[in-house]
Amino acid sequence: MKAAVWYGEKDVRVEEREVRSVQAGQVKIKVEYAGICGSDLHAYHHGVGIQEGQEHPLSHQKAPLTLGHEFAGTIVELGENVSGINVGQRVVVEPLYHCGVCEYCLHGQYNQCVDFGFVGLNSDGGFADYVVVEAYMAHQIPDEVSFEEGALVEPTAVAMHAVRHSSLKVGQKVVVYGAGPIGLLTVLCAKAAGASQIFAVDVFDERLDLAAKLGAIPVNSAKVNATEVISQQSGGIDIAFEAAGVQPTMDSAVSIVKKGGQVVVIAAISKPLQVDFFQLLVKEATITATLAYRHIFPEIISLIAAGALDVKQVITRKIKLDDIVEQGLELLLSDKSHAKILVKIGD
Amino acid sequence: MKAAVWYGEKDVRVEEREVRSVQAGQVKIKVEYAGICGSDLHAYHHGVGIQEGQEHPLSHQKAPLTLGHEFAGTIVELGENVSGINVGQRVVVEPLYHCGVCEYCLHGQYNQCVDFGFVGLNSDGGFADYVVVEAYMAHQIPDEVSFEEGALVEPTAVAMHAVRHSSLKVGQKVVVYGAGPIGLLTVLCAKAAGASQIFAVDVFDERLDLAAKLGAIPVNSAKVNATEVISQQSGGIDIAFEAAGVQPTMDSAVSIVKKGGQVVVIAAISKPLQVDFFQLLVKEATITATLAYRHIFPEIISLIAAGALDVKQVITRKIKLDDIVEQGLELLLSDKSHAKILVKIGD
Repeated sequence: MKAAVWYGEKDVRVEEREVRSVQAGQVKIKVEYAGICGSDLHAYHHGVGIQEGQEHPLSHQKAPLTLGHEFAGTIVELGENVSGINVGQRVVVEPLYHCGVCEYCLHGQYNQCVDFGFVGLNSDGGFADYVVVEAYMAHQIPDEVSFEEGALVEPTAVAMHAVRHSSLKVGQKVVVYGAGPIGLLTVLCAKAAGASQIFAVDVFDERLDLAAKLGAIPVNSAKVNATEVISQQSGGIDIAFEAAGVQPTMDSAVSIVKKGGQVVVIAAISKPLQVDFFQLLVKEATITATLAYRHIFPEIISLIAAGALDVKQVITRKIKLDDIVEQGLELLLSDKSHAKILVKIGD
Repeated sequence: MKAAVWYGEKDVRVEEREVRSVQAGQVKIKVEYAGICGSDLHAYHHGVGIQEGQEHPLSHQKAPLTLGHEFAGTIVELGENVSGINVGQRVVVEPLYHCGVCEYCLHGQYNQCVDFGFVGLNSDGGFADYVVVEAYMAHQIPDEVSFEEGALVEPTAVAMHAVRHSSLKVGQKVVVYGAGPIGLLTVLCAKAAGASQIFAVDVFDERLDLAAKLGAIPVNSAKVNATEVISQQSGGIDIAFEAAGVQPTMDSAVSIVKKGGQVVVIAAISKPLQVDFFQLLVKEATITATLAYRHIFPEIISLIAAGALDVKQVITRKIKLDDIVEQGLELLLSDKSHAKILVKIGD
């Protein structure tokens, strides 16, 4: 089969690769659509986040590995001891490896598993004709949910987990820093959760135009003082979602929330940032962070099926697997007008 | 009457002062004991936190003002329209001014009131023979609670509010950074709330000795790597209370909490500190902050009366009002073996 395989920094090759055999407890999926994620860009451009050196304790795989963890397709083979799912069913994959027995898994917090790992980073992923995953990862999708939408369930889950982890209540006001794919999906999720006013802050007008289409009030922080403008227009923000993760947006987030407010960090921020703890204290405010998701794929699928989450709007291009490097991994770094690029697998 | 009056930085004078007349909705209290707080030190040594220039919107007072907001005494006079409290009753004062009508007050979060202020910083306080406060501030104390213990209710409320604001559940493990009065009282409050293991981190052995007497495991971070030692001995910390507020303790707090853990900031940290957001993200951890207290004085009084909070242990000296500058405000800065110094009012 054809697969986009990570060999190292700036070295992803679309090549022929043997599909793995299906072991007990696993399923094989014919992939239809797979989305390109920021983590894929990190792996490609910086060589980080990929299972190298030794095998992952749960996947028992290591690089070179096929990338791709946002995908949907059709079950084509079942391993032994798999029940509750059948060949021919349309599915999306929740690509988290978790052990099921550590302290965190036992509490239901399987995204905090001590052996946490991702399909497509810690094992072969979805940028391939076929992928073999654990059966527990597969969630069936109804006919109303297209494969394109299915490929968007995973990044939407990141955004919705942040919204559900926050203290957001219907009618409250939020700001989302960063209008990349996760920020845009956070706008959609906050809207679905009943936020009455949603501001989106970015420095690229193309992204802000898309945010506005999704229902956000766009604020270009390269042109205006976002903190002042939003404070005046809102009268006070309850929750700030940090999907940008740089010092100016963190400063703005801490400044902008009301007393008792909350800053929810979704961005992976590699360098330490400064926090004005005096403001935090005076406001009794909270900064929290979320990692991936848990217990949320079925709800996302239901919301998409019900028409409450129009995730298709964040798709700005569809490409072929052969073009994933030039028109995907390279383009996303240079052209900030793009949000989500989907890869159509097969012909 | 005699009072310790703040005139400016390094200028607190024990002098004769007219006691204010009791207005409608107010009570006059004959003060018995009053504790010296870190805020009093800030006001004295740095000239900050005191109502200067214009009058406070709720107290209608401004400096020069009598210091003191941790005190207990006896009601000696009632203003008009005061009910539910009588002359001769023993009381402690919850020294927060709040308007009752702002968004935060209406939500019950009166410590976040837009016109928030303190008796003893925004109005005349308790380092005086008599003090006039709003009747809503007075909480009766039973005979089992001494006036000395009564004077400790306020700082204990700061610690207990932090413990109640945290996600601490009985049996969990905590660390308290800083073994000054608030840190020590946090140890006591965490113990009362059922923490199974409480570490206290400081650089002064005298303070750590007192923390150990209160039931904490002392860790001198000037001598050992506190993060390593505590991680090894605990197997993982659920909640870190930050009552020190310097970069090394914040770093340790963020490092030491388990996945899903919490850092609760009680210290007033004047300069921004760095936070490792990558660690926060990977652990889905939370940093929150608390300011003063709300809805907690009655519970503190009940716990002291029941013998569940032996707050007297943090008293390291009792002095006379005449000696408050030399043996109180000056001594506390130079001699770190002291925790809480109480001022005995009268003869």
